[in-house]
Amino acid sequence: MIYLDNAATTMRKPPEVAEAVARALQTMGNASRGATKASLAASRVDYVAREQLARLLGCPRPDHVAFASNSTEALNVAIMGLVDAGARVVGTDLEHNSVLRPLYRLRDERGADLAFARADERGNLDYEDLERLVTPGTRLVAVTHGSNVTGNMVDVARVVDIAHAAGALVVVDASQTAGSHEVSLEGTGADVVCFTGHKGLMGPQGTGGLCVAEGVEIRPFKVGGTGVHSYSETQPEEYPTRLEAGTLNSHGIAGLSAALDFIERVGVKAIGDHEEGLMRSFYEQVRAIDGVTVYGDFDAAERCAIVSLNVRDYSSSAVADELGERYGIATRPGAHCAPRMHRALGTVEQGVVRFSFSWYSTEEEVDAAVAAVREIAR
Amino acid sequence: MIYLDNAATTMRKPPEVAEAVARALQTMGNASRGATKASLAASRVDYVAREQLARLLGCPRPDHVAFASNSTEALNVAIMGLVDAGARVVGTDLEHNSVLRPLYRLRDERGADLAFARADERGNLDYEDLERLVTPGTRLVAVTHGSNVTGNMVDVARVVDIAHAAGALVVVDASQTAGSHEVSLEGTGADVVCFTGHKGLMGPQGTGGLCVAEGVEIRPFKVGGTGVHSYSETQPEEYPTRLEAGTLNSHGIAGLSAALDFIERVGVKAIGDHEEGLMRSFYEQVRAIDGVTVYGDFDAAERCAIVSLNVRDYSSSAVADELGERYGIATRPGAHCAPRMHRALGTVEQGVVRFSFSWYSTEEEVDAAVAAVREIAR
Repeated sequence: MIYLDNAATTMRKPPEVAEAVARALQTMGNASRGATKASLAASRVDYVAREQLARLLGCPRPDHVAFASNSTEALNVAIMGLVDAGARVVGTDLEHNSVLRPLYRLRDERGADLAFARADERGNLDYEDLERLVTPGTRLVAVTHGSNVTGNMVDVARVVDIAHAAGALVVVDASQTAGSHEVSLEGTGADVVCFTGHKGLMGPQGTGGLCVAEGVEIRPFKVGGTGVHSYSETQPEEYPTRLEAGTLNSHGIAGLSAALDFIERVGVKAIGDHEEGLMRSFYEQVRAIDGVTVYGDFDAAERCAIVSLNVRDYSSSAVADELGERYGIATRPGAHCAPRMHRALGTVEQGVVRFSFSWYSTEEEVDAAVAAVREIAR
Repeated sequence: MIYLDNAATTMRKPPEVAEAVARALQTMGNASRGATKASLAASRVDYVAREQLARLLGCPRPDHVAFASNSTEALNVAIMGLVDAGARVVGTDLEHNSVLRPLYRLRDERGADLAFARADERGNLDYEDLERLVTPGTRLVAVTHGSNVTGNMVDVARVVDIAHAAGALVVVDASQTAGSHEVSLEGTGADVVCFTGHKGLMGPQGTGGLCVAEGVEIRPFKVGGTGVHSYSETQPEEYPTRLEAGTLNSHGIAGLSAALDFIERVGVKAIGDHEEGLMRSFYEQVRAIDGVTVYGDFDAAERCAIVSLNVRDYSSSAVADELGERYGIATRPGAHCAPRMHRALGTVEQGVVRFSFSWYSTEEEVDAAVAAVREIAR
């Protein structure tokens, strides 16, 4: 199989990831529960992973890296935990349902005054529209770092400037960028960065989390056993425990930690450059094919390794099926959980066929995919 | 290491668990996202695991088994998703903070009218007190199936009779019993059964979930991408998607599925009998040691494989440290996240040293633990 659905999950991982999880499954106790060697081994792995993530994501304090089961949970934690009833909240048309649905929930259940900054037909965020919508006293701006549909990226520092000028906090969804692009809580001035472990970080599913800037107070989302302060009726105040209830996925975190080691060794820039080279090569070849429409902005200096396209007026599902069945190429068709983006692109009916690349993708795979698209378009 | 902290997490797993996770990490896509072979492989594993769990936990419909990252999350989902403002809710003194803290939250944030049925000094639930507290119109009774402190079990069917007579739903915390005791949604008439994957089910951390009886409507806890109904602003209505947002931990679920295969092969009864034999053997030997106090009811026909004790007036932490450092025996001291239970037992200051057994525990380990306790008590 030629696997080009890395924006959904990176199927190929560094081999040490599976090794680390298998080892953890044979040696680990329950982190922060007691002081046995097995429990301490789990606590140590969790702590090392927090340190690695803090380094990677520009979080000044490892104890401000809280784990969650994926970026969706992290985004629910941040968005639901920061916004009180009736507050003004702004999203963008680029957002995934992992951001949209919590925002709609704020509107429906807490009476939030909700607005979305528009994207143009190339899928770029309209910063002037954002600035207009982020009125003084806005509580929260939620923004993706990179669109999972087009691969277009957002200038987070610019969004932070706009938001902070109005007194708003910024929650960033780095699902598509962590591991292949620089994502920095401190560097951008963002208040929360949410990430998932199983995409660009090349770790196991069931891992992810959020980095929280100093002074940002997120209410607990789930509450329960913490291994500390057992007699308190409420979740402990201190991070990361405040945002983590119940047994952590330390087995998965062991794998994530191994993946983060790999990323530190290879370097985010080398990974990003490799993926970008493949993405640009694929783009330059498919854009020239008669009948192919490519979405997104390829003039931007920086973008995710995603190329979404359609072939004539063929249903994106039919094209993806053909790619899978006839050519053994795994892509993803349809709506990609980003309805506002499809409205901006005009692809609500057709969806798009998304090709997405990883560190393990090769030029040969790109060439095979181009040849397949060419045949389908003929 | 002699690992006797299985009530925290079963450290030793069937070898096929680590193999299944490692294999999944090399072959799986993102379940329910697209129709590639890799994605379908993940979906298939998730579905098989739902079928296995439905069989094991007496849930008539596999699609009413929703995954969560642990039982704490499952309990938050059930408790927060079933209770409206001002409702009457009843827990018990046996509960873990994973039940207590969501209940306190209902009281503090939604004005729930909250009461707890008491436990006697042996740690047994007072069913008459429960019946008195579950007044007509009570919305919810939350109850553990087995105490993580004493190992005492609760007659869930009896609780269900009391609750249903008053019109209340019953949420069961099966964290300590699933895999070693019969737990049946249908058999007991309970409305929700919450479970974790990494204890008696012998699967990876990061897995767990809830079984929901037909007709029980739980509001979504977290919301986000679901791979279906992308244009809906709210979480899809149908189970299990209603309660699952974002990428599932299919890597972990693959391991859980392998563990469930093992349990089906060996049999819950055989596992429970083995554990009970060790627990009773340990109990009979330590109770006879001068200076040892054992907590809980050992006259009950059925109980979890847990023996909690103290040695004289020694701090439970000091005893557990001694067991760990001098004898290489892993136990857990302290409060065990169950503050009301310790008040009932009178062990708030001292905590208790908990010994808990698994399928992989042996009679030799029991004997070594007894000898160690005897030496410490001397």
